[in-house]
Amino acid sequence: MQEVRLFSPASVANVSCGFDVLGFCLEPIGDEMVIRKVSKPGIHITKIEGQNLPLETKKNVAGVAGLALLEAQNYSGGFEIEIYKGIKAGSGIGSSAASSAGAVFGINHLLGSPYSAKELIPFAMKGEELASGAAHADNVSPVLLGGFTLVRCGKKPDVIALPSPSELYAAVIHPKIELKTSDSRSVLKQKILLEKAIQQWGNLAALVSGLYTEDYDLIGRALIDVIVEPSRSALIPGFNALKKAANEAGALGSGISGSGPSVFALCKGKDIAEKATHAMAKALGEYAIEFDTYCSKINTQGIKILSEK
Amino acid sequence: MQEVRLFSPASVANVSCGFDVLGFCLEPIGDEMVIRKVSKPGIHITKIEGQNLPLETKKNVAGVAGLALLEAQNYSGGFEIEIYKGIKAGSGIGSSAASSAGAVFGINHLLGSPYSAKELIPFAMKGEELASGAAHADNVSPVLLGGFTLVRCGKKPDVIALPSPSELYAAVIHPKIELKTSDSRSVLKQKILLEKAIQQWGNLAALVSGLYTEDYDLIGRALIDVIVEPSRSALIPGFNALKKAANEAGALGSGISGSGPSVFALCKGKDIAEKATHAMAKALGEYAIEFDTYCSKINTQGIKILSEK
Repeated sequence: MQEVRLFSPASVANVSCGFDVLGFCLEPIGDEMVIRKVSKPGIHITKIEGQNLPLETKKNVAGVAGLALLEAQNYSGGFEIEIYKGIKAGSGIGSSAASSAGAVFGINHLLGSPYSAKELIPFAMKGEELASGAAHADNVSPVLLGGFTLVRCGKKPDVIALPSPSELYAAVIHPKIELKTSDSRSVLKQKILLEKAIQQWGNLAALVSGLYTEDYDLIGRALIDVIVEPSRSALIPGFNALKKAANEAGALGSGISGSGPSVFALCKGKDIAEKATHAMAKALGEYAIEFDTYCSKINTQGIKILSEK
Repeated sequence: MQEVRLFSPASVANVSCGFDVLGFCLEPIGDEMVIRKVSKPGIHITKIEGQNLPLETKKNVAGVAGLALLEAQNYSGGFEIEIYKGIKAGSGIGSSAASSAGAVFGINHLLGSPYSAKELIPFAMKGEELASGAAHADNVSPVLLGGFTLVRCGKKPDVIALPSPSELYAAVIHPKIELKTSDSRSVLKQKILLEKAIQQWGNLAALVSGLYTEDYDLIGRALIDVIVEPSRSALIPGFNALKKAANEAGALGSGISGSGPSVFALCKGKDIAEKATHAMAKALGEYAIEFDTYCSKINTQGIKILSEK
């Protein structure tokens, strides 16, 4: 096998009360990538369509993630990568994670899978490090493993695959505004009230329980972020209107996707998710902001191979 | 049925990373209580053995918890309560919770069970409010429901029963020192670092996952408290030696039980739990402190009826 074409999906990180530790994988949106074995050593990004991103290997998230894998394998050959971006950079639904994870997944596949999906996470994190300055695993993990994932700690991540209730869907809206990760970071308080932290970890623990027991009501009661959303939501125009719209459409709960500006709502069933998607679109229609929407089942597979030769 | 004799067990609250939200129920230690229907209205504490505690209804945790239930039921008769304390007040293994929960469980039983075990929690919390000034549910919940419980929020508690892996045991040591709840509270910082809080909720979420999947290694990796234990452990003589002893005996992890001074270790299997119990006893033997130890399977039943007539 010399070449693989794959679909590397978008993802939602943080997930309300799961700030910095939780993430889940989306289905209808992602990057397509072609990865090809070549004799020339190293990683060569030969084409990027859909976004204006650097072709230079060390400046491209797929490039650095792929290089990290090649170095670990002491591999003397090389790979060409073509990237057809479906996810916009800065949208908050894991654009860099999709390309980073897709690159290492494809290369690993062409090398005969020396690594498990979980073992690929640290390589993909190299791409995240380039993109945001922090080697976080909360987007690359659900992309590589599918479904919901929990990352126990940051630097040497302990990634746990969580179950995805069968009727759980996500409604996602991406308001097309520029929101710099540095701005999203700067509104975070370094110190928080213990009392609020207790509420947050009680909610996250309850959310994890709800995922195991398929208790949709509990998932809804637990989807409350008392730490980050109160400050960060001010950066997203119409955030409260979006939450209200999702809520009135019957969503279980909602929150900021990653560091924003995208907003997600979790819903029981496709019908409610579609209603919530439309309701959020209608709510943001009141503002002079363009947007995209996605209605998605939780993607339990993650990256999908489209063809190989 | 006029009279019930029951065993109301001790419990471990907080459970390391689960500060203020998690608890589990112990098996070998608890209070015995006799609760008897009488015509004289109200709650009458007629006997307390084993501890010097007030007989006056409104000053006794079982009294106020029982009264709260009678008032909610508009019940015109009354109940006598005898308490044979097996748990020492101030030990950190839920002494007040056992008496409060036992009282409402017994009265409810004699009234023909108008309430479910979960519905009894708010009444039992009245006893906790008298004992500590805060109506917390993290001890009364595992006593009433058995096993591990999660309390989502404080004032109007949302209590979730969590599974207990079948081979999970607890080793508990109670160093007989006086540790005032007010002192245990005063060492807590009102504000904590967001970075530490993220570690804590990642660990708690992982612990909950480990309970569902019976992943003992994960339970062990997750049993880390980076928020409360670093300050509170200084109040418990020999704490580090106890942790080291439990760890070397093969325990999965350990921490402060409730607000201390008791220390618990969770273990896979009875053999390791017994070893950890002996190792902790040996470690505390180096200090001039008396102690009790308990080795316990996780008690999944909670309160047990011993006889009725």
